[in-house]
Amino acid sequence: MFREEIKVFDCTIRDGGLINKHDFDHRLVREVYKSLSAAGVDYMEIGYKNSKNLFSPSEYGAWKFCDDEDIKKVTEGIESKTKISVMVDVDRVDLDDVGAAKESPVDMIRVASYVKDIDKAINMVNHFADKGYETTINIMAISRDQGVELEEALHQIEEESKINALYIVDSFGALYQESTERLVKLFRSIIKRAEIGFHGHNNQQLAFSNTIEAIIHDANYLDSTIYGIGRAAGNCPLELLIGFLKNPKFDLRPILDLISKEFIPLREKIEWGYIIPYAIAGMMNEHPRAAMALRNSDKKEDYRAFYESLINTDLE
Amino acid sequence: MFREEIKVFDCTIRDGGLINKHDFDHRLVREVYKSLSAAGVDYMEIGYKNSKNLFSPSEYGAWKFCDDEDIKKVTEGIESKTKISVMVDVDRVDLDDVGAAKESPVDMIRVASYVKDIDKAINMVNHFADKGYETTINIMAISRDQGVELEEALHQIEEESKINALYIVDSFGALYQESTERLVKLFRSIIKRAEIGFHGHNNQQLAFSNTIEAIIHDANYLDSTIYGIGRAAGNCPLELLIGFLKNPKFDLRPILDLISKEFIPLREKIEWGYIIPYAIAGMMNEHPRAAMALRNSDKKEDYRAFYESLINTDLE
Repeated sequence: MFREEIKVFDCTIRDGGLINKHDFDHRLVREVYKSLSAAGVDYMEIGYKNSKNLFSPSEYGAWKFCDDEDIKKVTEGIESKTKISVMVDVDRVDLDDVGAAKESPVDMIRVASYVKDIDKAINMVNHFADKGYETTINIMAISRDQGVELEEALHQIEEESKINALYIVDSFGALYQESTERLVKLFRSIIKRAEIGFHGHNNQQLAFSNTIEAIIHDANYLDSTIYGIGRAAGNCPLELLIGFLKNPKFDLRPILDLISKEFIPLREKIEWGYIIPYAIAGMMNEHPRAAMALRNSDKKEDYRAFYESLINTDLE
Repeated sequence: MFREEIKVFDCTIRDGGLINKHDFDHRLVREVYKSLSAAGVDYMEIGYKNSKNLFSPSEYGAWKFCDDEDIKKVTEGIESKTKISVMVDVDRVDLDDVGAAKESPVDMIRVASYVKDIDKAINMVNHFADKGYETTINIMAISRDQGVELEEALHQIEEESKINALYIVDSFGALYQESTERLVKLFRSIIKRAEIGFHGHNNQQLAFSNTIEAIIHDANYLDSTIYGIGRAAGNCPLELLIGFLKNPKFDLRPILDLISKEFIPLREKIEWGYIIPYAIAGMMNEHPRAAMALRNSDKKEDYRAFYESLINTDLE
């Protein structure tokens, strides 16, 4: 019943870090790594590799920078086949900060890029590939960027880049299963030398079902997070994905324990999940920025005014 | 973009009533009816029509019985095109309790039935149809009952019943989009004289996406509830469904107001939604009964033990 090629990615600490300035303590990150390893999850994305010239370590936690020493602290001594991934944004990383793969605890580097920045992204992944890393390009905000520029970018990636996988990222949680199907088929029709990946956001409770839709149409790299943690509405819940895949290499139990012990209490402290302003932003194909600002204001439950503000802003 | 034949059903008070013994106060029910009417929702299911010989009014709220006088109290004086529906279970209604449609505030009666009880269900809907009501049969627990008995039941319904629509009810929240597609196509291939309906449960965050899948394959009667309220994991959120349908007859704003003012505070008092034991029950195609018992115990967050109890119970 299962497909050997499928790789499950956990982005709990990386995408969850967008809620708390990447300030998870080392104890929790180590618990996550231990549980993912016991559960048989293929990759753990542990944070961003950002330049300390652009972001101050006094303002952000360790997982905004992912120094090798920090990664070693949370992984060493744990028996594991789970590979470590870090994400980089175009123009936010100092390439010299990244040493050779064989001397690093990092196995994979994923480059997040908009369609417009694809030339830079290709340069970056090729640089990292030459240093020995597995790489992906993750095309963000795909629900807004489906024009002819996207197809051009896909052809260029196929011809010029050394990636292992190319990701569709539904940054706004705006895709439905028909739009997901169309995109995966488009990517699959152009990208022959790499796998296709899918990263959903859960604004409309569709991150899991869109991930299933991507699987049906042959995407093999699948992002998810524990208990769906992630910026704003969060992501595809890892526990649901493992439950669906029915691959005997996965064990759900360590993930259930981790949710009980760590993520139920954490959810009391920081907010993510199905929250109406994020649902509205998803429906309207908008970045969750305005909804996140609303949730930090004293009008956090004033959904109607928020909806009307979005309707009225967009008229030209 | 929209399909004229589609009817949106709100089951907020009926399915939500399974959490609180149908004891919503008249003020709230009236607010719901007012908002659904302003939003242009086609039907509001207000509760069950149960025999008072089987259930005591001292133990349950008004919406377990749905006396005409109670319905009138919450609807009279409100301008509305929203029709009123009540649900009946096989063997739990006294048929003489139900008068003629033309003297009742009720427009539709829906009969919930397992496949095994389909003869009784057909008798009941035909009785109600003869009294002038619109009717449906809602086949429950469909993820367990997909054998040859189901097809026999469908043929019998097509030949003998006077229903307006036949519902697929994913009682256990166990369907994925491929199983939903298969079922809707099966129903559609046999049922020619009535519409197909879909009622999802949200154990695996798939109630909305399965409803979309049902729409894609020509189901036209769509159940949902405000903010997803309903037994255990709840149902397809009405606000998401309206956002997806993009039919100009619907207005999302009254629903957003109702969530802000009534359902956010209500969710603090009674529990529904994405909760891990319900997700586990859905994955395992189990009734949520055991998970609901767990949530009322002091082991409510002990997910691993619950998972193991389900695995070990089923061995034979």
